[in-house]
Amino acid sequence: KQQEELSIEALVSSLREGNRKALAQSITLVESKAHHHRQKAQELVQGILPYTGSSIRIGITGVPGAGKSTWIEAFGKLLIKQQMKIAVLAIDPSSSLSGGSILGDKTRMEQLSHHPDVFVRPSPAAGTLGGVHRMTRETILLCEAAGYDVIIVETVGVGQSEGMVRGMVDFFLLLALTGGGDDLQGMKRGILELVDAIVINKADGDNRDKALTARGDYRGLLHYLKPATPGWNPSAYAASAFTGEGIEEVWNVINRFVKETKESGAFENRRSSQALDWMEQMIMDRLYEEFIQKEGRKDQLAILKEEVLRGKLLPTEAAAKLFS
Amino acid sequence: KQQEELSIEALVSSLREGNRKALAQSITLVESKAHHHRQKAQELVQGILPYTGSSIRIGITGVPGAGKSTWIEAFGKLLIKQQMKIAVLAIDPSSSLSGGSILGDKTRMEQLSHHPDVFVRPSPAAGTLGGVHRMTRETILLCEAAGYDVIIVETVGVGQSEGMVRGMVDFFLLLALTGGGDDLQGMKRGILELVDAIVINKADGDNRDKALTARGDYRGLLHYLKPATPGWNPSAYAASAFTGEGIEEVWNVINRFVKETKESGAFENRRSSQALDWMEQMIMDRLYEEFIQKEGRKDQLAILKEEVLRGKLLPTEAAAKLFS
Repeated sequence: KQQEELSIEALVSSLREGNRKALAQSITLVESKAHHHRQKAQELVQGILPYTGSSIRIGITGVPGAGKSTWIEAFGKLLIKQQMKIAVLAIDPSSSLSGGSILGDKTRMEQLSHHPDVFVRPSPAAGTLGGVHRMTRETILLCEAAGYDVIIVETVGVGQSEGMVRGMVDFFLLLALTGGGDDLQGMKRGILELVDAIVINKADGDNRDKALTARGDYRGLLHYLKPATPGWNPSAYAASAFTGEGIEEVWNVINRFVKETKESGAFENRRSSQALDWMEQMIMDRLYEEFIQKEGRKDQLAILKEEVLRGKLLPTEAAAKLFS
Repeated sequence: KQQEELSIEALVSSLREGNRKALAQSITLVESKAHHHRQKAQELVQGILPYTGSSIRIGITGVPGAGKSTWIEAFGKLLIKQQMKIAVLAIDPSSSLSGGSILGDKTRMEQLSHHPDVFVRPSPAAGTLGGVHRMTRETILLCEAAGYDVIIVETVGVGQSEGMVRGMVDFFLLLALTGGGDDLQGMKRGILELVDAIVINKADGDNRDKALTARGDYRGLLHYLKPATPGWNPSAYAASAFTGEGIEEVWNVINRFVKETKESGAFENRRSSQALDWMEQMIMDRLYEEFIQKEGRKDQLAILKEEVLRGKLLPTEAAAKLFS
C-alpha cells in the first residue's frame, strides 16, 4: 500500500512537470478495467484535481469525410505557433484519430503528434458508452494537470457520442461540407442544436464559392435554433485546412466565446452542471450495473422484454417483476 | 381480495363498453399515489392490454399562445364528423387543457368535451416527470380499451416533456406561429428534429400571407434536419382554427403517415421501441427511488454535490462514496 501511494505521488508530480510518458501511463491506468487499477486511477485523478480546469475544452464533430484530421492538424499548427500545448483525444473507435489509418489520415495526424507540444491519443478500446465517457473525462483532467492549454475531443458524430462530448467540453464545433443539409443526414438528430459554431471545411479552389454559399445557408438555419450556450449566438464560418484560410478566424471566435461566457457566468455554469451530470451518470451506471449483475437477471430481462414486445405484458408490470 | 378482483373485472368490461364514468374512474385509479391503488391500477391496465394499440396516437406541442386548444377543437370537430371518437390528454399542468382557464381556453375546450364522442382529461396533478409519464401512457391504453380512435396528447413544449410525448405517440406535430424561428426560441432545444409535421396556425385574415411565407421557411428548414420517423419527410402546413382552412389537409397527412409507416414497418418498430424504453425507464426510476430512499442518502448526496461543485471532489469519487 505504501509503495502504491508513493507511485501515485510520483505520477502526480511527473504529470505536473508535463512528462509525456507519465501522461501516457496515467491514461493507460485510467483506461484499465482491472479493479485494482480502477482504485489507483481514482486516487490519481483525485490527486491531480486541484491542478485541473484551466484549459479550453473544444469538441469537434463531423461526418466521416468532413476532413476532421486535416482540419485539426491545421488548427493545431496555428496554436503551436502561439506557444500553446494541445492535446487531441478521440472518443469513438471510428474517429479519424483511431480508424483513419485506412484512409491515410494516421500519417497526417502522426506528423502533428510528433511535435513536443502536442499530445495525440486515440480513443480507448471498445467499452460501454458510460465507460468511454468516464475515461475521456478523466483523460481531459490528466492533460490539464500536465499543462495542456487546449484539449480537443474528436468524435465522428454518427452515434450517441455527440451528446456525451457536448457534456464534457466548453465549445462544440461542427465541421460540415458544402452539401448543405445533405451531409448532415447521417448525423445524429439534434446535432445543430448542440453546436457553438459550424465550420464549412474544404473552402478552397473550385469549392470555395460553394462553401461561402453553404456558410450563408447555415447562418440562416442557425437563426431558427435555440443556442446551445446561453447568450452566445452560434454562427457558420468557411475554412480550408489546405490553404489555411479561415482557421485563425475560428480560433478568434473561440477566444471571444471564452471571454464572453466567462464574463456572463455561462462558462462556469456549464462546467458546474457538467460535473453534476457526470456524477449522476456515474450513480445511474452503478445502480444499473449492480442490478443487472444479479444471478439470472439478464435472462429474466430478455424474457420479459420479449413479452413486452409481443404485447403480452405491460412495461411497468415487466419492470415490477424484476424487483419482486 | 375476491371483491377487488371482481371490481377490476367489472371496470374492464365497463371500459370496453366505452362507459365514460368507468374511464374517468380508471384514470383516477391510475393517477393515485396510494400503494394499494397502484397495485389495482397495474392489474387493471394489464387486464385491458389485449384491447389496446389500435388508435392513432398524436402528440401536439407548441409555445403558449400558439392556439393549441382552439386548434385541437377545430381538429376534433372534423374527426367527430367522420364518426371518430377522440380523447384529448394533457401532459403538463401548464398546458391549455389544464391551465388555459385563465385565458378563457377552458370554455372552448369544454364545448368540445361535452360531445359524447370526445373525452377530455387535463394533466395529472403535479408529480415526478417519470410519474406523469407513466400515468399518461397508462391513460392512453385505457382510452384505447374504451374505444377511442384518436388519442391526442397535448404538451406546452417548454420543459422536458416533448421528448416524453415523442416517446409515447405515433405522430408528433408542432403548432407554430408566423414569427418564423423566433417563436421557437422558447421551445426546448432539438424540438424541430422530433416532429413529423409543423402546422403554422392562425393562417387567416391579414395573417394568412405571413403564414404561407413561414410555411415556406419551415419547409426549407426541415430539409436540413434528419427526419424523426425513418422514411417520412416532415413538412410544414398552414392552417386556421378560425376559418377551418388546412385542418383537413393535416388530417390527410396524418393518415398518409400512418399508411406509409405501417407499410414500411416504421410504425410497429416505433411502438416496440417505445414499449422497451418505457420498461427501461421504469427500471431506472425504481432503482433510483430505492437508492435515494435510504436513510441519510439525500443529505449525503447534497453534501457530495456541493464538494463536486467546489472542485474538491471528482464526480466519480463522489458517486463511489455513495455506494461505500
